[in-house]
Amino acid sequence: MSVNDFAGEHALVTGGAGFLGAHLVRELLARGSKVTVWDNLHTGREKNLAAIRTKISFSEKDIRTVEAKSVAEKFSVIFNLACPASPPHYQKDPVYTWETSVLGIRNMLQLAELQGARLLHASTSEIYGDPHVHPQGESYWGNVNTVGVRSCYDEGKRAAETLCADYTRFKGVDARLFRIFNTYGEFMHPDDGRVISNFCVAAAKGTPVPIYGDGSQTRSFCYASDLIAGILALARLPRERYDGPINLGNPGEFTIRELVTVLERITGKKLSTQNHPLPLDDPKMRRPIIERAERILGWQPKVQLEEGLRRTYDYFAAEIGSLA
Amino acid sequence: MSVNDFAGEHALVTGGAGFLGAHLVRELLARGSKVTVWDNLHTGREKNLAAIRTKISFSEKDIRTVEAKSVAEKFSVIFNLACPASPPHYQKDPVYTWETSVLGIRNMLQLAELQGARLLHASTSEIYGDPHVHPQGESYWGNVNTVGVRSCYDEGKRAAETLCADYTRFKGVDARLFRIFNTYGEFMHPDDGRVISNFCVAAAKGTPVPIYGDGSQTRSFCYASDLIAGILALARLPRERYDGPINLGNPGEFTIRELVTVLERITGKKLSTQNHPLPLDDPKMRRPIIERAERILGWQPKVQLEEGLRRTYDYFAAEIGSLA
Repeated sequence: MSVNDFAGEHALVTGGAGFLGAHLVRELLARGSKVTVWDNLHTGREKNLAAIRTKISFSEKDIRTVEAKSVAEKFSVIFNLACPASPPHYQKDPVYTWETSVLGIRNMLQLAELQGARLLHASTSEIYGDPHVHPQGESYWGNVNTVGVRSCYDEGKRAAETLCADYTRFKGVDARLFRIFNTYGEFMHPDDGRVISNFCVAAAKGTPVPIYGDGSQTRSFCYASDLIAGILALARLPRERYDGPINLGNPGEFTIRELVTVLERITGKKLSTQNHPLPLDDPKMRRPIIERAERILGWQPKVQLEEGLRRTYDYFAAEIGSLA
Repeated sequence: MSVNDFAGEHALVTGGAGFLGAHLVRELLARGSKVTVWDNLHTGREKNLAAIRTKISFSEKDIRTVEAKSVAEKFSVIFNLACPASPPHYQKDPVYTWETSVLGIRNMLQLAELQGARLLHASTSEIYGDPHVHPQGESYWGNVNTVGVRSCYDEGKRAAETLCADYTRFKGVDARLFRIFNTYGEFMHPDDGRVISNFCVAAAKGTPVPIYGDGSQTRSFCYASDLIAGILALARLPRERYDGPINLGNPGEFTIRELVTVLERITGKKLSTQNHPLPLDDPKMRRPIIERAERILGWQPKVQLEEGLRRTYDYFAAEIGSLA
């Protein structure tokens, strides 16, 4: 991939101060794009952008209330990443989460339409819910509870996909959907609450690693740089080659217990564990079929779990140290 | 049921000029309620309310843009029925449909919260999509395509259920969901496009009855007065007894071909049929389990298909006659 393949572009990244946003913004800069970040700092953190703060334009904006026609800047591409994404975060204020997903995508689609920008929308493997088929390809329609505790996120994201598809079909907007499976890496929120951050934080603090359920449930883990490479490949794809949502994730599947073992190798410590009940509607398994991304984008994840987890653990250890 | 059980109530009916709205408004009046109707007449028709126009307050309002705090009237109960509901209507402008469902419910929930009114929200069997289990109980999570041609309605309605549930859990709003299965009766739009109106209109005009697919797909058909009785029973239910969405529909299951036979009995005519391809993502079967409505509401449909269809056919025949 050429280093300057985003030269001449002006990218808007909503949620740019969040975990994935912080990675995406850096990679866009590295590839020559001008970058504007909108983030209301609900879960995003300014410190994630501190090192590159002078190279970007940043506004503390809430996409629930942005009016397309009052936006002064002109963008060629919009990456819509704004939304709390971890269960503890998105369940704290479900109405806010739903609104960010649903009102947010509407405002961003209106902006994309008005400005003729292409829109890359962060959807999620959560739209598959607790899947009845395994692994999950893009043609699977999902198994989601409409009125459960995870629904604000899952259904909000489903409805956002729908509006993107209809803006493409009926209003000619170039809106592209990618479905993010579990991703990890530097810039994750220490209170993210998902397994990798829970484990790294506990290991760094020397407290017991929390295991929900019996630890036999599986997850796939994609390292952030791999995911960003996939998103940017989708953003560079000629428009006529896009034909629907694309899974982005790492098909490598690990049980929660296996993750403990890898982390023990990395830290060189025997980790104690503590059992907790499985949260409500927690998916038992989730693994992407990525044949479509391989075929259309020529994309595959490259970073092995042990390597990515080592980098991530170092990041969390430093974060914990700075708070101590 | 006492005749005046809505005396002292001020009901807002959104979509009150539509098919079900026209029935609901009449029944509310009959039971002693004061009634306000909001309808933007997108698919609703003023003629549906002409006979009772002097007994209600009517405003041409769009729930997508109503601001709760600028509403002058004070309501004790809100029935949110506004949304195009037949596939040809809701697929004509999918963005409008999605917005009516999604922005509409948000505005109505804000209004219910502000006014302390209870909210009765019209959800739909469409949230079950093309179901993998048959018949469908309320605990079934559905099988819906997020990016298909029906998604604007299906996913819009799913996301609306979610917001209702979260307003109940997190904001203390008394929001109650009912899922409407196929319903028919007087005041249906002649261009509704669903099977009963298609069949009655064709039979009245003497044109061939359109059969989509091979006609072996099944539907359940609930007569409007039965459905309204269920909605009003839910509205009268003591709050603490509501514990989630309730199916309202008639479990009697008929193939499309059987419907032709009943209509032939009613009209005393041999009807010619014309075959068409099955529309995209058309559900192969749909039938409600109504055990919950029976148990919680003491409700059951009473009107047999032949009786309801006779009344409906007479209505359509008069409609066609008045247009001729």
